Amino acid sequence: MRSPKSRATPRGGPETGGGNRGEFVAIERLRRRLPGPPAGQVWIGDDAAVLGTTEGRVVLTTDVAVAGVHADLGLIGLDDLGWRAFAAALSDVAAMGARPLGAVVAVAGPPTTDLDLLYDGIAASSEAHHCPVVGGDLSNSSELAVAVAVTGEVDGEPGPVLRSGARPGDNIFVTGPLGGASAGLRGLRDRGGAGRDGSSEAVALETAHRRPRARLVEGETARRSGATAMIDISDGLLADLGHVADASGVGFRLDRVPVAPGATIDDALGGGEDYELVVVAARPERLAAAFADAGLRPAILIGSCSADPAERTLDGKPTVALGWQHSWG
Amino acid sequence: MRSPKSRATPRGGPETGGGNRGEFVAIERLRRRLPGPPAGQVWIGDDAAVLGTTEGRVVLTTDVAVAGVHADLGLIGLDDLGWRAFAAALSDVAAMGARPLGAVVAVAGPPTTDLDLLYDGIAASSEAHHCPVVGGDLSNSSELAVAVAVTGEVDGEPGPVLRSGARPGDNIFVTGPLGGASAGLRGLRDRGGAGRDGSSEAVALETAHRRPRARLVEGETARRSGATAMIDISDGLLADLGHVADASGVGFRLDRVPVAPGATIDDALGGGEDYELVVVAARPERLAAAFADAGLRPAILIGSCSADPAERTLDGKPTVALGWQHSWG
Repeated sequence: MRSPKSRATPRGGPETGGGNRGEFVAIERLRRRLPGPPAGQVWIGDDAAVLGTTEGRVVLTTDVAVAGVHADLGLIGLDDLGWRAFAAALSDVAAMGARPLGAVVAVAGPPTTDLDLLYDGIAASSEAHHCPVVGGDLSNSSELAVAVAVTGEVDGEPGPVLRSGARPGDNIFVTGPLGGASAGLRGLRDRGGAGRDGSSEAVALETAHRRPRARLVEGETARRSGATAMIDISDGLLADLGHVADASGVGFRLDRVPVAPGATIDDALGGGEDYELVVVAARPERLAAAFADAGLRPAILIGSCSADPAERTLDGKPTVALGWQHSWG
Repeated sequence: MRSPKSRATPRGGPETGGGNRGEFVAIERLRRRLPGPPAGQVWIGDDAAVLGTTEGRVVLTTDVAVAGVHADLGLIGLDDLGWRAFAAALSDVAAMGARPLGAVVAVAGPPTTDLDLLYDGIAASSEAHHCPVVGGDLSNSSELAVAVAVTGEVDGEPGPVLRSGARPGDNIFVTGPLGGASAGLRGLRDRGGAGRDGSSEAVALETAHRRPRARLVEGETARRSGATAMIDISDGLLADLGHVADASGVGFRLDRVPVAPGATIDDALGGGEDYELVVVAARPERLAAAFADAGLRPAILIGSCSADPAERTLDGKPTVALGWQHSWG
């Protein structure tokens, strides 16, 4: 978070103004509610945040969430939007096998935006993922957009896990059952909003949509155990695994896809936004042992990579990538 | 830049859609026009960018620019908005005495946004500041917002230069004449847009507004020469120096403020967005020698810090912080 400064054109800038007074008040309030840095670090309040030292590789990523595009605020809260935006950026860090050092949050939105509610979700996501909010910026805008950027590190060997490292014969895993977020969103639509169904299955699905978890420990554990390729499932298993296949020049044969209770196989294949990881590994026994040692639930074997890039099958039948490609038409 | 993935809610997401098809095409085009990474780094195309190793302190900052708030697109181009957003984020890195490692750019905007023109300015700013664009995200939104996040490093000693280190008796410098950006904006308003006045002074002022430079070399040189406090001038000299005084618990006495040719003293004191640095130094001769050794134009002595935090004078008269405070009413 910046200290009370503004990028607004001062003194005769466009009449819409930068909301400086509101920015000042909001930043002071947000600053008080977020945890402060350990000794030797500087977070909110100077020109840039100063994080710890690292001797590893530095990673950087950003994700933007827009109200009405990435979250239907008729169905979930601004706090959920904040949580999801934060988790989505962290999920990209997880997919490299990296550890987050800190995140900054840039918010552009109408002056009427309930920043406290938005930051409730951001702060909760920050705490749950052990990644501090170290700075940010605020501006007026007619539509709410939240951009989260995270920097992190990959210390030691092996290095970051790219999409391009999968080889024929490698095994393909996912870190959990899929389709929950998609089924949860459908349930919210059917019921017209959150919290209107008491069944534990419905609540679990709703939570999968509203409060997804970035698989940071899983990603780092997979890297250390020699994963050859990795990606997070944001667009849907087939679409995201397709990116790995494209980048690696391999095909894939799936024979089992774990479906979250209450979700459908279509949700699991194309639903997206589960933020589980696809982990490709040449030595599955090392992956299993590392996950067990870390106290993680076992990664789930779903298939293997093949040499023919055109081969993309489930139970021997060709797959069609669902998910984001649906909106190409 | 992300590879062709999207955070849009797939399959039945809000009908506004995530603009995935457009995102795919735009990202591929932008990726081709931006320089690629050196061996061992990964920029656009994986889940997160992988930068170099560092053994120093990691810094992180973000700045958001909104069309109509931070830039009047009736007066300057989308390329200028892109340049300015990028430079503003880098200026925060400069004000820590840090070196940028890479930047990510999150863009939310209408589908009609001329992304090529926007990225012309971002790419030019990236090249001019020697800071690569290593990733980003795109989304639909009704209003254009550009959030730039930069990570960097502070290697060796001394550490990052904070706002809070100024001490009574320290000298106060600026890295260049002030008020040009403000006067340039006024000139653009008077003439109704860019490029309509051939005088070299008018062009220089207009450029100061459209294409400000972050003082990265100056900031790092000042840190190495023992600067005690530093801030970039985004809101106006008096406002930003006021932040240093507040954080350090000192006052200031100014006796000379350098005014850009064609600008007024009010522009220089309160205009903001010049992105020159305020450098506070206990040993001005070290600063002067370091700037000379680095081939930089000399930093300009404008006054000194005093022990009384309430003392904030210019030529012995009390100052009133201009700039962003004007819009508090």
